[in-house]
Amino acid sequence: MKALVYIGLKPGVLDPQGRTIARSLNDLGFDEVENAFQGKIIELTLSSTDTEAAEARVKAMCEKLLANTVIENYRIEIVTAE
Amino acid sequence: MKALVYIGLKPGVLDPQGRTIARSLNDLGFDEVENAFQGKIIELTLSSTDTEAAEARVKAMCEKLLANTVIENYRIEIVTAE
Repeated sequence: MKALVYIGLKPGVLDPQGRTIARSLNDLGFDEVENAFQGKIIELTLSSTDTEAAEARVKAMCEKLLANTVIENYRIEIVTAE
Repeated sequence: MKALVYIGLKPGVLDPQGRTIARSLNDLGFDEVENAFQGKIIELTLSSTDTEAAEARVKAMCEKLLANTVIENYRIEIVTAE
């Protein structure tokens, strides 16, 4: 199965990367862009068979390695079928 | 409305970041992780009102600035309601 992990900055955390994207798009003439945020997706291929157990394991991976939980939120999505 | 842009490496492009994530998770005892890919999500807040026009504009943003189309694929999702 696959696990998709979406990681983004918590609300209120300064996002200079997002600001730069929004400003650059405005400078290129895309005036409709009011705001931009950049986050990460990590797609994991897992040999697990139990969806619930897999989700708990992926949560542990986020807490230990994937996300910086001081400034980042994460959301896990388990995809069982292709 | 909002536009979500998913950007990832094209298949076949070497992904050292993904390899490192997979190996690090294995080293931490998460042996079920077979493979990992890392991509980006960019969330844009747009003042546009026409969904189709907005999608075409976001495509242009991807081609011009957001994605490196030599090595990256992108996928656009327009979200009209919260």
